[in-house]
Amino acid sequence: MNRISALKQSAFKEDKFDFFLIFNSANLTYFTCFSGATALLIPEQGESILYVSAVNYEQAKAETSCLTVELLKRGENLMEKIANHAFAKKFAVDTLPIESWRALAKSVGGEEKLEPANNLIREIRKIKDRQEIELIRKACNLTSEGMRVAFETIRPGIKEKEVAAEVEYAMRKKGSDGTGFDTIIASGANSAFPHGACSNRIIREGDLVVVDLGATYEFYRSDMTRTFTAGKSSEKQRKIYETVKLAHQKAFETIKPNIPAREVDAAARQVIEAAGYGEFFVHNLGHGVGLEVHEAPILSPDSKDTLSSSNVVTDEPGIYLPGYGGVRIEDTVLITRDGAEKLTVGPCTLVTAC
Amino acid sequence: MNRISALKQSAFKEDKFDFFLIFNSANLTYFTCFSGATALLIPEQGESILYVSAVNYEQAKAETSCLTVELLKRGENLMEKIANHAFAKKFAVDTLPIESWRALAKSVGGEEKLEPANNLIREIRKIKDRQEIELIRKACNLTSEGMRVAFETIRPGIKEKEVAAEVEYAMRKKGSDGTGFDTIIASGANSAFPHGACSNRIIREGDLVVVDLGATYEFYRSDMTRTFTAGKSSEKQRKIYETVKLAHQKAFETIKPNIPAREVDAAARQVIEAAGYGEFFVHNLGHGVGLEVHEAPILSPDSKDTLSSSNVVTDEPGIYLPGYGGVRIEDTVLITRDGAEKLTVGPCTLVTAC
Repeated sequence: MNRISALKQSAFKEDKFDFFLIFNSANLTYFTCFSGATALLIPEQGESILYVSAVNYEQAKAETSCLTVELLKRGENLMEKIANHAFAKKFAVDTLPIESWRALAKSVGGEEKLEPANNLIREIRKIKDRQEIELIRKACNLTSEGMRVAFETIRPGIKEKEVAAEVEYAMRKKGSDGTGFDTIIASGANSAFPHGACSNRIIREGDLVVVDLGATYEFYRSDMTRTFTAGKSSEKQRKIYETVKLAHQKAFETIKPNIPAREVDAAARQVIEAAGYGEFFVHNLGHGVGLEVHEAPILSPDSKDTLSSSNVVTDEPGIYLPGYGGVRIEDTVLITRDGAEKLTVGPCTLVTAC
Repeated sequence: MNRISALKQSAFKEDKFDFFLIFNSANLTYFTCFSGATALLIPEQGESILYVSAVNYEQAKAETSCLTVELLKRGENLMEKIANHAFAKKFAVDTLPIESWRALAKSVGGEEKLEPANNLIREIRKIKDRQEIELIRKACNLTSEGMRVAFETIRPGIKEKEVAAEVEYAMRKKGSDGTGFDTIIASGANSAFPHGACSNRIIREGDLVVVDLGATYEFYRSDMTRTFTAGKSSEKQRKIYETVKLAHQKAFETIKPNIPAREVDAAARQVIEAAGYGEFFVHNLGHGVGLEVHEAPILSPDSKDTLSSSNVVTDEPGIYLPGYGGVRIEDTVLITRDGAEKLTVGPCTLVTAC
């Protein structure tokens, strides 16, 4: 329960709140290492209460510790139950949809008793602890294995979805709990769509193929991209590829504790702009990875985050030419005490061995 | 764009709203058949505006029609852009987290100009149109294929995760876009947890194994469960299994248009209660399936939904004995003009052929 203690220290130090209420499912998993609770009530003093409906109640009791697990019976009103347990000056709330926010406000005696405070949790979750890094490392190893299979599988004549099938099967066989997000195998002109998913399109000789993969391991995720051409490549493809590869490398060399995240984005963006492709790098350089595939910190031109040791982030520049195709290269990167370590390892060549 | 027209008819008929704002990602996909937009502004008259950030802008233009696709540039404030486009008396809003709700309220000139109105969309999305039913049918066919593979794969000595790998691979090879939710292969005492996921546990002879699968096909999902024992079964297992099977059948026979959903739940619950297992049926009988694996209507003892033609729902009674094991049988069911049709087809026997 060190994570709850860390939140208590940061949330209650100014005596602004009496209770912290957690509703977001990734936050609930973060604080309980369990998936399937409805809410968590963290008091300034004493044991936290985890509210769980009957369908997950026995599992919650078996899989959590140092918490009171309270059954949410059919017909019981969660917000009223919370209010009964907590006569409070003020609740910090991670986040709620407006309808639930209003129901909670009604139960506790007014909106002025509530304050959205997800930022506090965002800051805590940015810094991964040893256990989290271990799980992300495992998810990354699985993804590297998947990328190896993609490299060996992509050839002219195979469908995008068939590649996805082989890659996901390989990750599952090695122990993945499932994909970290919807696998992207985007070939030909589809590769110009950064989130191109995968279709029944048959990959042809010389197509660009963007392969963007993630695995999940005990709730933690990984994120990795390589771009290949099946069989042969053109001069233009090689120029784009080498530009993205250099941008990826320059950004990686910049990553270290205490650097503003926007400077890492700039290191990659400058390479792509200098090559004349600036307008075609249509997304941020990267994002944090953990329980969610997209979380803090953000690596973008307008990011306010400063990187620190034990952040896990992606480094993923790309160039996308509408109607032609795209190239993206991405690794999941752990920020160490004095630099960075790539947690994903994959082929560094454009043309597959087919 | 018939779906937007349907919303306009229901939302604007009382002259209460001038605009409908959509932010929820499943709702956005419902109205645009596209995944990756940020918001949709639907005016009472004229063309709707789809707001898309640069990363998905080219894809949105290529994959949507009858909409104005508007680029959300870096640094632009979505809520201010919306307010600029829409001088309105009142906006209906599907749903927003409290922080975004407050930002929108500030931009449009006060919270009194906003009204949460997801219920209107919930009611529309409950009734599947022909295209949706076709896609759900395909997702169900893929899941039936996955269940066939599970039945053939489960044997003493195999790991839960290995079964998941084979099942997901089979669905992918037949055209699935991925799982509809995290696959559950829960064996032995784990099968008593309704959401038991899958682990590295090795299945042993005589274990109960709950197999809960879904596929996704062009954004639409399916949901299906069977329970098997590997190699042999006990008298107690067979009694529980036959009780759940009868409950599942009784509920199915009840499903038809105009019946209150709680009566369908009751048909199954009465069978289980009569057999003495009432307290161990710890969840609702079922839920709607479509773009989301859990959506309206709800089939539960306290549901306010009434079923109607072209709803797609699950029928999934279960009995879970803590520390012992559980049995669940589930099909995805289409409600027809005068009854119901099972869209998933699977083995009706407890013991696998291993």
